[in-house]
Amino acid sequence: MSEGARERILSACTAVIARNGLAGFRMSDVAREAGVSIGLLPYHFGDRDGLLQAALDEVTASATRRADAVPHAHTPAARLEALLCSEFGEEEGIRAGSTAWNELRAAAVFDRDRAAAVARSTADWQRDVRELVAAAAGDAARAAAAAGDAAAGSAAAGAADRALALTALVEGLSGRWLTGQITAAEAQASVRATLAGLGLADAAPGTTPGG
Amino acid sequence: MSEGARERILSACTAVIARNGLAGFRMSDVAREAGVSIGLLPYHFGDRDGLLQAALDEVTASATRRADAVPHAHTPAARLEALLCSEFGEEEGIRAGSTAWNELRAAAVFDRDRAAAVARSTADWQRDVRELVAAAAGDAARAAAAAGDAAAGSAAAGAADRALALTALVEGLSGRWLTGQITAAEAQASVRATLAGLGLADAAPGTTPGG
Repeated sequence: MSEGARERILSACTAVIARNGLAGFRMSDVAREAGVSIGLLPYHFGDRDGLLQAALDEVTASATRRADAVPHAHTPAARLEALLCSEFGEEEGIRAGSTAWNELRAAAVFDRDRAAAVARSTADWQRDVRELVAAAAGDAARAAAAAGDAAAGSAAAGAADRALALTALVEGLSGRWLTGQITAAEAQASVRATLAGLGLADAAPGTTPGG
Repeated sequence: MSEGARERILSACTAVIARNGLAGFRMSDVAREAGVSIGLLPYHFGDRDGLLQAALDEVTASATRRADAVPHAHTPAARLEALLCSEFGEEEGIRAGSTAWNELRAAAVFDRDRAAAVARSTADWQRDVRELVAAAAGDAARAAAAAGDAAAGSAAAGAADRALALTALVEGLSGRWLTGQITAAEAQASVRATLAGLGLADAAPGTTPGG
């Protein structure tokens, strides 16, 4: 299967879940949406669970690609902000990915297989965030030490704790956004304000485009 | 209807949603679980939407009651911590309430009526959090001014922004907890660490019991 067909199937999978939820999810709907033979899906993704896991991983990977494409995000703090903010946006693909992730997470409360898939994708994302937090906090600590500000150096502590809180914050904000309580731009502003409050932002203004 | 029957029906409603999700939700199951006549439900709560709205409000109210019962939570910062941490716990009622809330929020992505109910309950909760944040930040600003620490005074800024982020953080952590990725105690620790990082904690150790 070409990379194009694989991407088309995964994009179709998130679109189908985003439209109808997981309750009415059918592999045949995904094949029709992607314009491929139904036989291609089990051949390449295994069963329904394999397809859903691959779709979750693709949502995470596409957010990472969007973050990597943000211009001027050269520092760890700017890359951290770009990665977290890339989960929100008005483009159809971003909303569909977030909706599918949200729906699979909700299903995971009642379904162990789904929970394992969600936990694996979440852990991958959280590890990426943790590495950026550690690097950004290291920069902040060095800047604080240079300025003789000992207290600000504490930002370097607990990168794993911060990564859990920041990724959970993004998931909570996604729920608000998808239910129409806040806009994508407001979600991004909340992420930026929290990063600044935690001492994990560059002194310069943010570098990601607003929603 | 006695307050006892009303509470029993709302508790039964969250238990039924927590067990089977919203897809299989039936008013008759709630009546059976509560041990009341099915006729009592529409008479007192109106339709299905009225019952679900009342159940959401009760989840928020019961978290507030648990927070009010935390001993030694006399400062705004301690009350803020108690309120946010009261959303997590191993008791059956707390998990059922969180599961029902999570399920209604997930349904709200696909259903405008559900979204309006979730938005109303969320706004009530967020307003309570905002008032505590403003009071806690005021205390922190006064302490910072007394200590000659101008930077810490910035914690007073943006109580509404902080309230959005903190309530969204709790919702995100709830999703992790309900899917078995973290324990209730880990969720509470993440809330406390974030409050401390944002300058919204008392200098003394936390006052809520661990998980």
